[in-house]
Amino acid sequence: MELQEALHRLEDVQRKLFAYNSAANALYLDGVTVAPKDTAEGRGVALGVLAGERHKIMTDPALAETLAFLEQHKGELDRLHARQVEELGRSVRQITRIPAEEFMAYAMLTNEADDVWHRAKECSDFELFRPVLEKLVEYNRKFAEYYDPDKAPYDALLNEYERGVDMAYLGDFFAVLRSKLVPLIKAVGAKPQPDDSFLHRTYPVQAQREFSDYLMRVLDLDRAHCGIGETEHPFTLNFTSQDVRITTNYKVNDVASSLYSVIHEGGHARYELDVDPQVEYTCLAGGVSMGVHESQSRFYENIIGRSLPFIKAIFPKMQELFSEQLADVTAEDFWRAVNRAEPSLIRIEADELTYCLHIMVRYEIEKALIGGTLEVKDVPETWNRLYKEYLGVDVPDDAHGCLQDSHWSGGSFGYFPSYALGSAYGAQMLRNMEAEMDVWGPVGRGDLSAVTAWLKEKVHKYGCLKTPAEIVQNACGDFDPTAYTDYLTKKYTELYGL
Amino acid sequence: MELQEALHRLEDVQRKLFAYNSAANALYLDGVTVAPKDTAEGRGVALGVLAGERHKIMTDPALAETLAFLEQHKGELDRLHARQVEELGRSVRQITRIPAEEFMAYAMLTNEADDVWHRAKECSDFELFRPVLEKLVEYNRKFAEYYDPDKAPYDALLNEYERGVDMAYLGDFFAVLRSKLVPLIKAVGAKPQPDDSFLHRTYPVQAQREFSDYLMRVLDLDRAHCGIGETEHPFTLNFTSQDVRITTNYKVNDVASSLYSVIHEGGHARYELDVDPQVEYTCLAGGVSMGVHESQSRFYENIIGRSLPFIKAIFPKMQELFSEQLADVTAEDFWRAVNRAEPSLIRIEADELTYCLHIMVRYEIEKALIGGTLEVKDVPETWNRLYKEYLGVDVPDDAHGCLQDSHWSGGSFGYFPSYALGSAYGAQMLRNMEAEMDVWGPVGRGDLSAVTAWLKEKVHKYGCLKTPAEIVQNACGDFDPTAYTDYLTKKYTELYGL
Repeated sequence: MELQEALHRLEDVQRKLFAYNSAANALYLDGVTVAPKDTAEGRGVALGVLAGERHKIMTDPALAETLAFLEQHKGELDRLHARQVEELGRSVRQITRIPAEEFMAYAMLTNEADDVWHRAKECSDFELFRPVLEKLVEYNRKFAEYYDPDKAPYDALLNEYERGVDMAYLGDFFAVLRSKLVPLIKAVGAKPQPDDSFLHRTYPVQAQREFSDYLMRVLDLDRAHCGIGETEHPFTLNFTSQDVRITTNYKVNDVASSLYSVIHEGGHARYELDVDPQVEYTCLAGGVSMGVHESQSRFYENIIGRSLPFIKAIFPKMQELFSEQLADVTAEDFWRAVNRAEPSLIRIEADELTYCLHIMVRYEIEKALIGGTLEVKDVPETWNRLYKEYLGVDVPDDAHGCLQDSHWSGGSFGYFPSYALGSAYGAQMLRNMEAEMDVWGPVGRGDLSAVTAWLKEKVHKYGCLKTPAEIVQNACGDFDPTAYTDYLTKKYTELYGL
Repeated sequence: MELQEALHRLEDVQRKLFAYNSAANALYLDGVTVAPKDTAEGRGVALGVLAGERHKIMTDPALAETLAFLEQHKGELDRLHARQVEELGRSVRQITRIPAEEFMAYAMLTNEADDVWHRAKECSDFELFRPVLEKLVEYNRKFAEYYDPDKAPYDALLNEYERGVDMAYLGDFFAVLRSKLVPLIKAVGAKPQPDDSFLHRTYPVQAQREFSDYLMRVLDLDRAHCGIGETEHPFTLNFTSQDVRITTNYKVNDVASSLYSVIHEGGHARYELDVDPQVEYTCLAGGVSMGVHESQSRFYENIIGRSLPFIKAIFPKMQELFSEQLADVTAEDFWRAVNRAEPSLIRIEADELTYCLHIMVRYEIEKALIGGTLEVKDVPETWNRLYKEYLGVDVPDDAHGCLQDSHWSGGSFGYFPSYALGSAYGAQMLRNMEAEMDVWGPVGRGDLSAVTAWLKEKVHKYGCLKTPAEIVQNACGDFDPTAYTDYLTKKYTELYGL
């Protein structure tokens, strides 16, 4: 094989994967936005075929051969091609380790599990979900062994979601969080809560839509390259760095809901739009990992979006759009209301302070399930016990407990910790940012350009040109969870007058 | 090869083609509805890869082998599989006759041509479009030779759009139209025109949207399986018989525009939704040809939608939604206004009576271009001469003349006649329908169920289980263009008191 021919094949296969990904994205987006209600079947058939084709491409021996050839000629490759070979080679090896019939059976299982989970959650019946969850855990334990037989199974899975992260890393991280946050949450709980009733007045959807348009301008999201839609659950989806979509959900009686969805998804979009176009149509396109992605979305949502300077900057626009609803409210009132912290039952509704405790419950349970020290049948009891222990709340039923999230039904074990890591990375980025420049002056004038430029330079532009660990090192330095606990301590001390 | 194995391969390849088609549909739909403005590039790359993959599947020698094997065992196949082998075999043979590199070069050319045509139309500059059109004509003459060297080139192309139709067939058809319609149009032109100014009052888009919802109920289009969106140019797109989308375009100062778009596209959708689900995910799914499809859309739009009984049935709803705008208007006024006929310049804005003359101009030009008796450089002059001759109008510039349609830039030569054929087929279906049942009584009550049931039984349910010619025979009997001219003569005699 000639080097040029091998590089041509490499480009060709990456464009194919891009096309399959775009196709799946478009079908998915259609399904959750405009598709008529009873049309899932045909979309499911199409998506199934495309996933099968993708699997065939990835497990084609000719691709493995091309990649092996290019690995042998690594010295002759430029940085871009070298990274492509590294990343695609890794993906190919991981997927090839799973026997094709197990891969297909698992795809069918997660498809079924999604349906079963929805029904189980609806009637709050864990027993309905249990048999499927048992199979999912069993498969994931097996896959962990395929991925890396030298690692503990849960470590092997963690490594798939956030390369380089393992239980030792997370154990240290969560220990710091536990030791600092539990007393902080207790201190906050002893203080009177701010009034947030005005957030739940009637906010007409049309005015909220205009507000979203405004927020996208503040985040400098170019509407010629970034669309906004409406779905039940907000998300971000990227076709290319020139074509990103976010969605939100408007609640008439909750103005903060869409406000922070737009900023959160806007943070994800900001990342995708800022990736260097030279990696377009390759396996290096897009954000590098879930953890780094969440570091960006949560940075914009919480660190910027829930800060007093930012709220002061956008408050005039809010008062213009919601003049009646906010007539008796100040920017500071609003700031206090959207930062109201108290232990609760539902992760996705949790505040910035208690959020990580929700993650830690899931981490403990996943670790034990995949580690083989917890049986699936004991999940509800363990869940409820840990919620009581970490958050001090009583779980009334499984719908508000261990059935609340879709992750496990989708086969994702090892994914949750990324949310907490992302939050911590973001706080450490803020510390570094503050050391280098004036963050809050411009933010207080509604000008995020310097913040975005810093993040683009340190994180966004690389796409997958660096590994997640390299990106974290680049933007944070050595990981130090106390940056996060310090940030939260300072913020909530100020908010609650501790 | 075993028969079962061959049938399994046949099913497999058809599901793949379905998936690629769904993917292309979803990407296209996204592109023309919600996609941000400057995102065409990535979509283009994805669609290009998918088209290439589809071409590979269709030209794979293993598929040809499977089909050849199944053709040899035709006697052992059920009707469904026999038709699949017939249709897919035909498509494979036609596509395989075009050398792969020519196929790809042509795909790139049409892609470029679309862009050039848009620019040429914008500045009404035929010279800009001429070189591309020359290449397109040249390719199509070559492809015609590949498709069927025994046929005249234009006959070979016509056969690709509407199997069984050729210049002899169309020559007879258009001769009848010309002899009957030209005097009819002249007679209409001598009469005073009805007032249609009230169609152009201000009709708020939101009320027009509600009106579309109502029309979809009248057409019995199940919203759980049929969506409606908004695009610049209305169209119908089908994923499966359970998932069809139509689009419309609301004009504040033209209530008839969306009204008839919704009924026209609704007719296409009605057809797709009524196809027997047993052909789902195969090459027999969907409507059988452009001509038969247009027969349905134009049947609902013109024959039903512009009839006095139908307008009387929907008029109360219109007066409810547009009470001010239609306060001084009767159903009969409305009927006269939406049937106002006069020669004009633009095909897509033409009335039912003069429409076919627009098609005949295009037919004459295509026939001569592909036949080699007209040079591309002479198209504008010929176009203008024929518009004067057939319609009596002076073409002021090429934007309102030979640059108005996108078909040629998309490489479609031989497509236009289907519009005229569809109109004529529909009129003949009406004649047969009227002979068998009471059409206008139920329509006058807004009840289209009997009409739709008749069309489903005679046309829709077959999908591609029969050939276009068989469907026409089934619903119309032997083709008789005088059914169409009689229908128009009767209608316009009544409208204009001839």
